[in-house]
Amino acid sequence: MAEFDLIELIRARCAIARDDVRLGIGDDAALLAVPAGQVLAVSTDTLVAGVHFAQSTKGYDVGWKALAVNLSDLAAMGATPAWATLALTLPQADAAWVADFADGFAALAREFKLALVGGDTTQGPLSITLTVHGFVPEKAALRRDAAQIGDAVFVTGTLGDAAAGLRCLDKHTTAAQRTLATASTMRESLIARLQRPTPRIAQGLALRGRARACIDVSDGLVADLGHICTASSVGAEIDLGLLPASPALFSLFDADARAEMQLAGGDDYELCFTAPKANATYWLNDLASSGCGATRIGRIVAEPGVRVHDSAGNPVAIARAGWQHFAS
Amino acid sequence: MAEFDLIELIRARCAIARDDVRLGIGDDAALLAVPAGQVLAVSTDTLVAGVHFAQSTKGYDVGWKALAVNLSDLAAMGATPAWATLALTLPQADAAWVADFADGFAALAREFKLALVGGDTTQGPLSITLTVHGFVPEKAALRRDAAQIGDAVFVTGTLGDAAAGLRCLDKHTTAAQRTLATASTMRESLIARLQRPTPRIAQGLALRGRARACIDVSDGLVADLGHICTASSVGAEIDLGLLPASPALFSLFDADARAEMQLAGGDDYELCFTAPKANATYWLNDLASSGCGATRIGRIVAEPGVRVHDSAGNPVAIARAGWQHFAS
Repeated sequence: MAEFDLIELIRARCAIARDDVRLGIGDDAALLAVPAGQVLAVSTDTLVAGVHFAQSTKGYDVGWKALAVNLSDLAAMGATPAWATLALTLPQADAAWVADFADGFAALAREFKLALVGGDTTQGPLSITLTVHGFVPEKAALRRDAAQIGDAVFVTGTLGDAAAGLRCLDKHTTAAQRTLATASTMRESLIARLQRPTPRIAQGLALRGRARACIDVSDGLVADLGHICTASSVGAEIDLGLLPASPALFSLFDADARAEMQLAGGDDYELCFTAPKANATYWLNDLASSGCGATRIGRIVAEPGVRVHDSAGNPVAIARAGWQHFAS
Repeated sequence: MAEFDLIELIRARCAIARDDVRLGIGDDAALLAVPAGQVLAVSTDTLVAGVHFAQSTKGYDVGWKALAVNLSDLAAMGATPAWATLALTLPQADAAWVADFADGFAALAREFKLALVGGDTTQGPLSITLTVHGFVPEKAALRRDAAQIGDAVFVTGTLGDAAAGLRCLDKHTTAAQRTLATASTMRESLIARLQRPTPRIAQGLALRGRARACIDVSDGLVADLGHICTASSVGAEIDLGLLPASPALFSLFDADARAEMQLAGGDDYELCFTAPKANATYWLNDLASSGCGATRIGRIVAEPGVRVHDSAGNPVAIARAGWQHFAS
C-alpha cells in the first residue's frame, strides 16, 4: 500500500466539514482561516511505541489517545479545538491497523469537531506526532504564569486512575480485590482512563475568566503543579486528604499506593488550576453541570516548591515527582 | 539530561523575536496571532534516520534539512514563513548532537525569521517531525489544482543535483571524473544540495499572482508534476533537453544518469509551476533577480499523465517515477 493510500484511508474516516478549512489534505500545505478577535493556540506531542504505549496496544486506543493528549493541552489553555496535522510513522503498511487507528482518532475528532488538515506517513518504528490548533481570545487564555499567592488550587475529575490502570494491565499487580466480578469492572474502568482519556475541553472553556493559572496533569500532579509554581514564582500546598479518587481506585488500592498514584502518576489529563476562593462555589456548580466537576485540593503560597500534607497536617514525602524522559 | 533541558537548549539557540508570538515555548500551547487578511498555511513532514537520512548524518545537516523540506512546502504555496513546532525523538540525550542540530535549524530559521514556538522531545529511534506555519492572502495561494491546458511548465534552479549528491556519498559511484580536484569541488556542491537544500521562499512569493499551479520537487519531477496534473485534471509534456542542469551534474554524470536523476531523483526542493506563456519574460526576469531563476521545461496538455520527449521529439521511457514509502 502506497503512502498516498494510507493518507486517503485516514482522511476518509476523519472527514469533518469546517468552513474555516479553505484547503485541506492534498496540497503542499493546508489553508486555514483563524476567526477575527482570536489567537491561535498550537501544541504538539509525540507518542512512541514501547515508551508511551505498549507495542500491543490496539490501533483504536493509540489513535484516540494520541489526539486526547494533544487536545488536553488545548483544554489547559481554555482553547476551542479546530484542526490537527498527523505525522504517522509505521514499521509496515498495515491497512487494518491504520483503519483501526483512524477510527479511534475520528471518534474523538468528531466529538470536538476537529478537522484533520494535513499529514505525513513514513516508514520506521511506530510513532505518532500530532500538532493541534485551537482558538482562544488572547486575554482569556489560561496560562501557567498567572497563579497568585492566596489562590485556591483545584483539580477536575479524579486523580490516579491512569496510573492505577497501568498497574491493572501488569499481571503482577497486587491490588486488593474484594470480589472478582466487581474488581474486573473496576479494573476495566481504570484501564479505560489510561487508554481513552477524556480531554477536559468543556471545563477549560468554562474556566475562561474564572481560573488564573491552568495546566493539564500529564506528568503527575506534583510535577505539573510545580510547573505552574515555577512559571508564576510561587509555591503550593496540597492536602492529600482532599485529592479526588474514583471508587475503583479507592476499592482496589491501599492508601500508600493511592497516594503515590494520585501525586505522581501521570496520564490523567485532568486540569489543575488556581483561582481566587471567592465566588468559587458559583462557578464550581457550572463546572459540575459540564459533566465533570472540580475539587479544591490546596492553595498557592509564597514559599517556592510544592508541599503535600495529610489531613493531620503532617508532611507527606513525595517518592517520585512525575516522570521525565532522559531522566538524569 | 532531562527533557526540559533539551527543549531549553534548542529554544535558546533558536530565539527569534516576533510580535505575533504572544506566548512561546513553555506553556501547554503557544498563542499566535495571524495577520488580518491572510490565511494560515500549515504543513508537516517527518524525517526518519535510516530512511530519509543516513544515521551518520551530522546533527547540523539534519536540523537544516528538516526545516528546509518543511519550508519548501510553504514556498510551494506562495506563503511567508512564520512559526514552527518541533517534535524530536532521540535514542539518548546527546547534548552535543542536539546543540549541532539546533544550530543547523537556527541558521535557516534566522534566514526566514521563523520562530520555534513549541515542541516535544521523546526517547526513541531518531526522527524529527516539524509543523510549519506561514501566511498567504487566500486568493494568492499557489495550489496544485489550478493548472490550465496551454500553460507553460517551469522549474526553478537546477534539477537532479540532490540525487547526484546521494550517489557521490556512495563510495561505489561510477561518476566520470575529469580531474580529482575539480571533481572533488563538484561533488561537494552536489552533496551540499542534498544535505542543505534552499527552500525557494522568495521565488514562491514572487510567483504570487503569476503562477497558476505550483508544487515543490521532493519526490521527483515526473511524480510531482503528476500531482499537479491529477489535481488539475490535465496532463503535461516535458522536453528532456530543456531541463536545467548544474555544471557539476553535467560534468560528473553521463546523459542517461542525468536523465534519470533529473526526472525521478527527489530531494531537489525546486518549485515546479505552471503559468500562461504570455508575459512570462517579464516576471522571469524578476525571478532571476531574486537569486534563483526559472526555466521553461514543457507544457500542460489535455491528455492525462506526464510524458517526456527528447530534443528530437522521441518519447523517453521513465524508469522510476519518484519514490514512495511502502511501495507496493
